[in-house]
Amino acid sequence: MSSEKPAVRLALLGCGTVGSEVVRLLHEQAADLTARIGAPLELVGIAVRRPGRQRGTIDPALFTTDALGLVKRDDVDVVIEVVGGIEPSRTWLTEALRAGKSVVTANKALLAEDGATLHDAAAEGGADLYYEAAVAGAIPLLRPLRESLHGDRVTRVTGIVNGTTNFILSSMDATGAGFGEALDEATELGYAEADPTADVEGFDAAAKAAILASLAFHTRVTAADVFREGMTGVTAADMASAKEMGCTIKLLCIAQRGPDSTGNESVSVRVHPAMIPRSHPLAGVGDAFNAVFVEAEAAGQLMFYGRGAGGTPTASAVLGDIVAAARNRISGTRAPSESSYAHLPIRPIGESVTRYHISLDVADRQGVLATVAGVFAKHEVSIATVRQSGREEDATLVIVTHGAPDANLAATVEDLRSLDIVRSIASVLRVEGGV
Amino acid sequence: MSSEKPAVRLALLGCGTVGSEVVRLLHEQAADLTARIGAPLELVGIAVRRPGRQRGTIDPALFTTDALGLVKRDDVDVVIEVVGGIEPSRTWLTEALRAGKSVVTANKALLAEDGATLHDAAAEGGADLYYEAAVAGAIPLLRPLRESLHGDRVTRVTGIVNGTTNFILSSMDATGAGFGEALDEATELGYAEADPTADVEGFDAAAKAAILASLAFHTRVTAADVFREGMTGVTAADMASAKEMGCTIKLLCIAQRGPDSTGNESVSVRVHPAMIPRSHPLAGVGDAFNAVFVEAEAAGQLMFYGRGAGGTPTASAVLGDIVAAARNRISGTRAPSESSYAHLPIRPIGESVTRYHISLDVADRQGVLATVAGVFAKHEVSIATVRQSGREEDATLVIVTHGAPDANLAATVEDLRSLDIVRSIASVLRVEGGV
Repeated sequence: MSSEKPAVRLALLGCGTVGSEVVRLLHEQAADLTARIGAPLELVGIAVRRPGRQRGTIDPALFTTDALGLVKRDDVDVVIEVVGGIEPSRTWLTEALRAGKSVVTANKALLAEDGATLHDAAAEGGADLYYEAAVAGAIPLLRPLRESLHGDRVTRVTGIVNGTTNFILSSMDATGAGFGEALDEATELGYAEADPTADVEGFDAAAKAAILASLAFHTRVTAADVFREGMTGVTAADMASAKEMGCTIKLLCIAQRGPDSTGNESVSVRVHPAMIPRSHPLAGVGDAFNAVFVEAEAAGQLMFYGRGAGGTPTASAVLGDIVAAARNRISGTRAPSESSYAHLPIRPIGESVTRYHISLDVADRQGVLATVAGVFAKHEVSIATVRQSGREEDATLVIVTHGAPDANLAATVEDLRSLDIVRSIASVLRVEGGV
Repeated sequence: MSSEKPAVRLALLGCGTVGSEVVRLLHEQAADLTARIGAPLELVGIAVRRPGRQRGTIDPALFTTDALGLVKRDDVDVVIEVVGGIEPSRTWLTEALRAGKSVVTANKALLAEDGATLHDAAAEGGADLYYEAAVAGAIPLLRPLRESLHGDRVTRVTGIVNGTTNFILSSMDATGAGFGEALDEATELGYAEADPTADVEGFDAAAKAAILASLAFHTRVTAADVFREGMTGVTAADMASAKEMGCTIKLLCIAQRGPDSTGNESVSVRVHPAMIPRSHPLAGVGDAFNAVFVEAEAAGQLMFYGRGAGGTPTASAVLGDIVAAARNRISGTRAPSESSYAHLPIRPIGESVTRYHISLDVADRQGVLATVAGVFAKHEVSIATVRQSGREEDATLVIVTHGAPDANLAATVEDLRSLDIVRSIASVLRVEGGV
């Protein structure tokens, strides 16, 4: 396994759950990595906030609190960032890329909010920017989108990209528990953080959706372009209703290309809970697993499935990128750079065609259905199915629509809310996956 | 979309189902491909056996019967081969690679039988050799194995890589039909060829297994190294028995690394029908879809799912490779070459640890189970479950074993066959996926 080539020198920014796994794997797999790269990898420094902390068997001399200083060192070839957040990571990585150093990062927030700055710096410095670990952890997903499907036209990407919420929804589906109970279980088992906002409100999924949409459609999409609705409002009754329809509920990120209302090609990106049929490949993705379903004109339907988070799976993706970056440095080349030539406009959520599942508590009177149906017709929303179950004084109407612009559906719900005969709107959920 | 860079010139060998789709997509996606590559693609010639045949709107001047002459032309940068078979494809591709021309091929048979010759020629000529379409059609699978998982250690690859047999087994599972009836249906619908031998006897899957094992374990594995058992012996009774156990039956290719009987790291590659639990992600892969389940030390469980065959999906994979090869030519670089440094030995099937499901028709006498159990014990095979159902004169014993070397299991079955009390062995099937 010896090699005459000089080592490729790595600087690691961050040494938490993922960082420490990266160090462990670099050490354990050293012989294999050297053989695959054609040169050894050498870790020359690790930037941390608290250098005094004991970190297993890692040589204490490697630690520094001066991340920017480490990035600027002449003996650093590849910078690996597993800190997260916008600043100071953006400053470090921009500095590295401009100086021609390769960057491997797992920082989805930065890529989704301001990926352009990183891509521009990479172009300026002629450097590699890899971020496989930023979306869906261990699943090799970005490289296929970036490269394998480059001869095809991707039309839609539908993903379960947040493990915490998938764990919660899978548990609600399996046990009939409500959101609060399932969240408590997830927190106890370490699947949810003490403050679960980023997960349950869909911020994490929205960042990943922006990155996926950018790659799939060759267009810069940021987190601000993503319509986002969390899943805290999904109730046990919603899940029961989904089951009756042969569905389950998942928090989906959906990125789609297609003509807008004026016929121009555009991109729509959204994150929200949705009912999907149990026969859909995404419906069976349980526990904290992630999966991304890709539809392309020539390839047809593809799905990628695996662990979306966790120190070791994420470190696997980081290591894969390190190997790629190191090989490129040795052969004096670089990976395909960002492809954002298409510049497709972003379609607002109101123009996205979706389907709604609406559950209404109504007065059990003659003519209720006719009145309700009239509201749908007024907004040009076509009804696919209606289920009515009467009780003594009240009745429940469950209506599933055909596809219609989201704005029309939202206006329909608003109008229903103002009807006397509608006592309450028990739930409104989007329906996906061709029910 | 204009580009100042000169065109990358392509020669296509073969213009059947896949080839004609490649031509169509090259034409339809021309503007996008040019933008993604940074230069236009130009098809300069198509080698076919019968040039007179009408082929849609393709310029007849492109056709030639002289494939070798086309490959040797100075104005050819990338050679695309979709003919199949060992010769003359091997001669054409070796010629191209040695001359430094990039090769994109879908030829699984050639890669599985003599990939070494192609890889050596690529190394000699400093040329790219891409073959994403050779395994699992449209599914981006080889690039993730070749690159994304290069920082990890793959331990096992379990795949459904033949669409014809998956269609047949899915149909047997859904309808209770026997093999013959399901095969007839597959033939009628165009899923099975007039001579289905390559599919149903597992030759096609074995070639793909060799390619997957080579990539996963950085070791040259050929089709001759793969243990192969077809699925023509799977009966409606087997499928019914699988259902009773909460399983279904799939034709699997399994490539695994692990210590052999002397403790040395080795590789085992096999193709055979097997029972897998319905809860396994591969169990839900229906119709003619393919899926490959990958287990790696750090990444954990991954699955890749999509269309494994068909002109358009396969053409998508070919186009992705063409884009990669063209980008490399323009930037004067090449893809990571073959990684076969590990040179792991191939473990014979007898040493592979598997589990058996054995169904016996036995005489309904006292002591039968004790006698049968004694045979298992003699060969050091541990029994996991026994189910006995008696009839007037006969009884059926269904035995599922724990994991044991395949040779011990085979010897057990041989001994059972010679027992007086065993009237017949109704079926023997391997069991996978942790039932």
